[in-house]
Amino acid sequence: MKQIDIDDILKDIEVLIDKRNTGALQNILIDLHPADIAQIISHVKKDERIYLFSILPPKVASSVLAELDPPLMEELTEELGVEKISAIVDEMDSDDAADFVSSLPDEIVPEILERIPEEDSDEIKQLLHYDEDTAGGIMALEYVALPMDATVEQAIQEIRRLKAEQEVTDVYYIYVIDDENHLVGVVALSDLVLAEDYTTLKEIMKTDLPKITPDMDQEEVANIFRKYDLVSMPVVDQENHLIGRITIDDIVDVLEEEGSEDMAFIAGAPDEEITEGSISKLARARLPWLMVAFLGELLAAFILNQFDVTLRHKLMIAFFIPVIMAMGGSTAQQASVIVIRGLATGDLSLRDTGPRLLKELKISFLNSLFFATVLFIIVYLWDSAFFAGILSVSIFVVINNAAIIGALVPLTFKRLNIDPALAAAPFISTTNDILGILIYLTITTVVINFGM
Amino acid sequence: MKQIDIDDILKDIEVLIDKRNTGALQNILIDLHPADIAQIISHVKKDERIYLFSILPPKVASSVLAELDPPLMEELTEELGVEKISAIVDEMDSDDAADFVSSLPDEIVPEILERIPEEDSDEIKQLLHYDEDTAGGIMALEYVALPMDATVEQAIQEIRRLKAEQEVTDVYYIYVIDDENHLVGVVALSDLVLAEDYTTLKEIMKTDLPKITPDMDQEEVANIFRKYDLVSMPVVDQENHLIGRITIDDIVDVLEEEGSEDMAFIAGAPDEEITEGSISKLARARLPWLMVAFLGELLAAFILNQFDVTLRHKLMIAFFIPVIMAMGGSTAQQASVIVIRGLATGDLSLRDTGPRLLKELKISFLNSLFFATVLFIIVYLWDSAFFAGILSVSIFVVINNAAIIGALVPLTFKRLNIDPALAAAPFISTTNDILGILIYLTITTVVINFGM
Repeated sequence: MKQIDIDDILKDIEVLIDKRNTGALQNILIDLHPADIAQIISHVKKDERIYLFSILPPKVASSVLAELDPPLMEELTEELGVEKISAIVDEMDSDDAADFVSSLPDEIVPEILERIPEEDSDEIKQLLHYDEDTAGGIMALEYVALPMDATVEQAIQEIRRLKAEQEVTDVYYIYVIDDENHLVGVVALSDLVLAEDYTTLKEIMKTDLPKITPDMDQEEVANIFRKYDLVSMPVVDQENHLIGRITIDDIVDVLEEEGSEDMAFIAGAPDEEITEGSISKLARARLPWLMVAFLGELLAAFILNQFDVTLRHKLMIAFFIPVIMAMGGSTAQQASVIVIRGLATGDLSLRDTGPRLLKELKISFLNSLFFATVLFIIVYLWDSAFFAGILSVSIFVVINNAAIIGALVPLTFKRLNIDPALAAAPFISTTNDILGILIYLTITTVVINFGM
Repeated sequence: MKQIDIDDILKDIEVLIDKRNTGALQNILIDLHPADIAQIISHVKKDERIYLFSILPPKVASSVLAELDPPLMEELTEELGVEKISAIVDEMDSDDAADFVSSLPDEIVPEILERIPEEDSDEIKQLLHYDEDTAGGIMALEYVALPMDATVEQAIQEIRRLKAEQEVTDVYYIYVIDDENHLVGVVALSDLVLAEDYTTLKEIMKTDLPKITPDMDQEEVANIFRKYDLVSMPVVDQENHLIGRITIDDIVDVLEEEGSEDMAFIAGAPDEEITEGSISKLARARLPWLMVAFLGELLAAFILNQFDVTLRHKLMIAFFIPVIMAMGGSTAQQASVIVIRGLATGDLSLRDTGPRLLKELKISFLNSLFFATVLFIIVYLWDSAFFAGILSVSIFVVINNAAIIGALVPLTFKRLNIDPALAAAPFISTTNDILGILIYLTITTVVINFGM
C-alpha cells in the first residue's frame, strides 16, 4: 500500500516549482489523488499555486478544483481564461459542475455554458435552479435507471456502457422506473451481483425507501442517510419522477459543512475562513458578531450608570458583576447549544418544546441552588450575611432565567424558520449579560432601599 | 415509495400499548426499519419502552439496540436477563456487539460471552481491546477477503456464500490478500460486476490506498474517508496484515459524534444528554464547566477588591468592566473556535502554528483599532478625553491579547496531545475575563497614579 506524506512531497515540489521544472512536476502530480493535489495547492504560495494548477491536464484540474475550498477555487479561476474554464467544466460531474459554475462571476457564465456540449449545459442549468443548501443543490444527474422488467444481465450491460462512456463513476444502486419515469424501487449492486442473469429487477428491488425531494434541506437529507445507514439515494419530484441522485460523499461534506457552520455561529466567527481570504476581509467578517457584544455591553455600562447610587452605597456590589454575568452566560450557552445541536441532528423537534424547557429548568434549578449556597457561604465569610443573602438570591434568579432563555430562543427561531444556530452566542450571552446585571442590581437596590 | 411519519405511528402505538395488544404491535413494528423502531422507543415512556422492546424478536431487537443512544441502551438492558442479552449479542455484527458488550456492567460480561458461540465471543474479545475512539474501536471483522489469483467468478461465489450465511451484509469492496494475510489491494464491487468471469482479482484490484491502522484516532480516519470520498476501507496492523474493515455508516456516526462533542466542549455542556438521563445526573454533568466559570469570576471579584482605591477614585471605571470582559471573551472565542475546527477537520495542522498566530494577530489588530476608536469617541462624549484614552488603550491591549490566547491555547493542547476542543469556553473565556480585568485596571491605576 502506498502511503502519502504531504509534507515530504511538498518539499520536493517547492524545489521543482523554483526551477519551473514542469515535466518533473507533472510526473509527480499525475500519480497523486486529486484530493492530495488540492492539499498541495492549498499549501503553496499564491503565484506558485496558479502555476501549479495551470500545468494540470483539464481532467485532473477539474477533479482538483472540486476538492478545493471556495475562496481558493475563486482565486484560481480568476487567473484562467474562459476557454480553460470551459474545458474544466466539461470534465466535471453535473453536481460539481453546477457548484463550480455558481461560484463564477455572473458575467462569464453564459459564455462558459455556450462552449460546452448542449446536453451538459442543460444539466447544469437545471441544477442551478436549486438552492445550494437543498437536496437539489447536492444531487447529481448521473445515475443508472432501468425499467422493472429489465434483467440482471441487461442491468450489468447498461452499467458497463455508462462506465465506458464515463457517464457514471461509482455505482452502488440501480434505480428502477416505470414507463413514465416514476421511481418504483432500487436494486443494490451487491444484490445484483448475487442474482442470476435472467432475474428481473422487479424481483430483487427494494421499495420501502424514504422519499427525498429536491427542496428538502440538505441537513434533513443528511439525517436520513445517517438514520438508515444509506450510501446513495434517488431524488424524486412531487409526482415521484426520478430526477437525480445523492451519494454519501456529498453527505459527508454536508455533515462537515453544517458542523463547521454551527460551530462558527456559536463562536460568532464566520466559516470558510481557515485556509484563505485577505486579512481585512476576515476582520470585517468577524466584526458583526463583535459589534453585537460591544453594543450590548455598552448598554450594560449605561445601565450600571443608572445604579450609580446603589454602587456608591457599597462598592463591593460591583466586584460580583463578573460572577453574575459569567454564571448567566455559561448556563444559557449550555442550554442553547444542547438545543441547537439536538435540532440539527433531529434528536429534538418542536413538539418537544414544553418538556425540553421543563427539563432545562429542573437542571438549572439544581445547579442554581448549589451556587447560591456556595456563594452565600463565601460572601458571608468575606462580608456579611445581608450581602450574602442578596447575592445568593440574585445568582439563583439569574441562572434559572438564563436557562429558560438559552433553551427558548433557539426553539423559537426554529419555529420562525430562522437557523437556530444564529441564536447562539454572542446573541444569547450578550442578552444574558444585560439581563443578569439588571436582575442583580434591581434586587440589590430594592433590598438596600427597603432593608436598611 | 413508503413514507414513514413517526408522529402518526406513535399515536397508534400508544393506544395499542395501553391495551397491551402485543400481536398488533408486533405486526406494525416488524414492517419498520430498526432506526424507526429505535426512534419510537426513544419517544415513549420508560415502562412502555421496556414492554415494547421485550416483544421484539432477538434479530430485530439487536438491530434496534445498535441504533439507540447509550443511556437508553443501558436502561433497557438493565431490565433484560442474561439469556435475552446473549441472544441479542449473538445476532449483532462484531463491531456493534463489541460496542454493546462494552456498555454492559463488567460483572455480567463473562457470563454473556460464555453463552454465545466461541467464534463470535473471540471476535468480540478481540475488538474490546481497542480504545472506542480509534479505528480499532469502529472496525468490524465481517469482510470478504480473497487471494490475488481468485477469479471474478470465485469472488462472486464467495460473496454469495457469506451473504447466505449472514456473515456479511453490505459489500462494497473485496479485499485482496497474499498467502500470509497481507493486504495487497482492493476490488470495488462495481469493477467486479463489469469484469469477465475468468478475470483474476490481481488484474482489476487497486493498490494505492491510504493505510489505516487500528490505533488511529477515529477523527483522523473520518478525515481520510472525507478526503478521498471512500465508502469502505480495510484496517491493517503494522505488518500490513488485514484485520478488519470500516464502513462509511460508522464514519457518518463518527462525524456526528465528534461534531456534537466539539460543540459540547465549546458550550461547556456534556454530550449525549439530549434524549435521556436523570435530571440530577445531567445537572452534575454540567457542573464542572460552571464551576470553572464560577471560581474564575470569584478570582475576578478578589482582583477587583485589590483595585478598590482606583474604583473609588472613579466609579465609572466599573461600568466598563462588562465591555472589556465581553470584547476579550468574544475575540478569544472566535480565534479558538476557528483553530479548534481547523484542527478537527485537518485543514489546519501544527506546522501552521506560526502563520496562524500571525494571521489572528493581524485580524485582531484591525478590529481592536476599530473598537478603540469607537470607544474613545463614545467615552469622550460621555465623560472626558482622559478616561476615553485609558479605555481605548485598554480595549486595544485586551482584544489583541485575547486573540493570541484564543489561537495559542488549542494549538498548545494539540501539541500536548490533549483534545483542543477542551481549550474552548469556559476555559478560554474565563481566563480572558480575568486577564481583561487585570489589564484594564492595571492600565487605569498606573495612568491615574502618574497622570493626575
